[in-house]
Amino acid sequence: MPVKFSLLNEDNGARLGRIETKRGNIDTPAFMPVGTAATVKALTVDQIEQTGSQIILCNTYHLYLRPGTERIERAGGLHGFMNFSKPILTDSGGFQVMSLSKNTKISEDGATFNSHIDGKKIFLSPEISIDIQKKLNADIVMVFDECPEYTKDKDRIKSSMDLSIRWAQRSKIEFGTNNEKMLFGIVQGGIFNDLRKECLERLTDIGFDGYALGGLAVGEPQDEMFKTVEEISPLMDKYKPRYVMGTGTPGDLLGAVKRGIDMFDCVLPTRSGRTGLAFTWDGKLNLRNSKYTNDDKPLDQNVDCPASQLYSRNYLNHLINCNEILASTLISWHNIAFFQDLMRKIRISIKNGNFQDFYNQHFEKLNY
Amino acid sequence: MPVKFSLLNEDNGARLGRIETKRGNIDTPAFMPVGTAATVKALTVDQIEQTGSQIILCNTYHLYLRPGTERIERAGGLHGFMNFSKPILTDSGGFQVMSLSKNTKISEDGATFNSHIDGKKIFLSPEISIDIQKKLNADIVMVFDECPEYTKDKDRIKSSMDLSIRWAQRSKIEFGTNNEKMLFGIVQGGIFNDLRKECLERLTDIGFDGYALGGLAVGEPQDEMFKTVEEISPLMDKYKPRYVMGTGTPGDLLGAVKRGIDMFDCVLPTRSGRTGLAFTWDGKLNLRNSKYTNDDKPLDQNVDCPASQLYSRNYLNHLINCNEILASTLISWHNIAFFQDLMRKIRISIKNGNFQDFYNQHFEKLNY
Repeated sequence: MPVKFSLLNEDNGARLGRIETKRGNIDTPAFMPVGTAATVKALTVDQIEQTGSQIILCNTYHLYLRPGTERIERAGGLHGFMNFSKPILTDSGGFQVMSLSKNTKISEDGATFNSHIDGKKIFLSPEISIDIQKKLNADIVMVFDECPEYTKDKDRIKSSMDLSIRWAQRSKIEFGTNNEKMLFGIVQGGIFNDLRKECLERLTDIGFDGYALGGLAVGEPQDEMFKTVEEISPLMDKYKPRYVMGTGTPGDLLGAVKRGIDMFDCVLPTRSGRTGLAFTWDGKLNLRNSKYTNDDKPLDQNVDCPASQLYSRNYLNHLINCNEILASTLISWHNIAFFQDLMRKIRISIKNGNFQDFYNQHFEKLNY
Repeated sequence: MPVKFSLLNEDNGARLGRIETKRGNIDTPAFMPVGTAATVKALTVDQIEQTGSQIILCNTYHLYLRPGTERIERAGGLHGFMNFSKPILTDSGGFQVMSLSKNTKISEDGATFNSHIDGKKIFLSPEISIDIQKKLNADIVMVFDECPEYTKDKDRIKSSMDLSIRWAQRSKIEFGTNNEKMLFGIVQGGIFNDLRKECLERLTDIGFDGYALGGLAVGEPQDEMFKTVEEISPLMDKYKPRYVMGTGTPGDLLGAVKRGIDMFDCVLPTRSGRTGLAFTWDGKLNLRNSKYTNDDKPLDQNVDCPASQLYSRNYLNHLINCNEILASTLISWHNIAFFQDLMRKIRISIKNGNFQDFYNQHFEKLNY
């Protein structure tokens, strides 16, 4: 069964769509929980599926270092290895080469760096990254790109972008033809939107199954991020999925959907969950706060998830104070369920043609 | 609905029974997972129930220190607080006063000690312990006892036992009359079985709903533990549940069942789970071992639990090496499911009158 993206509705800039894959549909706008090391931290696959998540993201860089490609390939890829039957997107490792590794050297061929785990020397190239992602058996594969650190040096960004485009071309050749999977290009260009436009044009000339904005959500103010999305998103192929990588807060998601984005991933729900921070329709709760010792309300009765409904804030505060693992599980589980509840309600509002009302009603309260 | 114990069958010393409570039945011989701080570590209540566990144990000492009785009582007791609907047994704190606390001073009144968490001075007495257990709303309540450390000083053990019996009497008075709950006496006496017999006789004269052996499984060789059980168990009221506290390995359970014991609790399945140690019908697996990187078999296909069947040893080894929380969850979950599978098969063998065959077939392999 070939993978297929359909644009179902547009409403004030926001888009309703669906990616159909042999492993299930992905309704867009979609949020992908992050399962870096082939596990969405602290959750079983049943719990992830119960949240309504239709796709997760795993990290090529981390999996290449541990446990290595061979052990996953032997299990029939990531789905068999981690017992997850729904679609999986893998990033290419480009971002982690910049953010995690040491002594990185970039050449035309690829990136040489030291593993952040044991210092071992590693080489990644477009061909190697795509080969790993094929062995991981990802349903959506990302091109290998260079992610330069934040800089105002336009020449540096331009030459990096040029390299990323050559790497995107090599990624596409290595990917070959496979109508059951998708290969996404990644738009770079730093803070220079003219470079981003050029990058998108040249990627579109090569031709990909979807287009991502990379190098955002790296600490810039939200309005800058929105501005970039607003300028670039309308230029992206209307009939292909549009993805902002590594984003974001509920407010980021609402604002990017408004500007035409279809896909998101972020560690925020799970990372926050492990520190006792819960996202709710009424705002953010720091469950470590002693005021919750007297709060017998459920975590968030507006979210249809056992973790949201069946455990009191009083109990969760107790679990956090005792460093109990169950605190990480329950709050991460709720947070992902909340993010999926948000995405579901966004999709319904686009379907019904009242996304702007929904946005106006919730943006301020959720932009925490 | 009054709580009730029925002895259903006896087979070569082993007993099949059932405790009926308003919160559900407990088939005996029964294993109780330990939920020290109102959570069986790393598991949701759904996962605990899926293992076939019909009762769990929580710790009065820990809960009294954190979060304190008031926050649990307000939630309607432990069941509401932790969202667990099945029966709960609470120990009295006596064992933790000995094993965890600092600067303990025992008087006729009770025990004064410093909290192991923050050094705060705490006082526990029979009246306070039973009052806490009532507020926790435990279905099975344990008398407050003094647990002397291991010693060959018989006079010391004798006077401690005398005190524990006076405390048991006071515990019973404080417990009062409540036919929906059970109060168990605890037989002390250290390594002196004549003292243990005397203790049991005097507790039986006071009259309890069940009898426990305390001060075992504290590091003594298994055959000594079995010898004590063998001598004392037949003297215990035949029509009341018999409980060995804090035990044990699968071999300990088999051996104690053979000697007439009905109930057990132990942290072993969860504590081992968090270190990567799995109990299986074929022996103990240290899943950290690098040999499991090449082992694509499920953890234990003989145990009917998602954690046992759906994840490979290769994957679990990867999760442990990455310190992923999911490793603790899955291996703890499997271990409890394995313990419950063992208890279920023990009960079936007693029912069918072939417990001795079952024992002979499994004792050596499981006595790891």
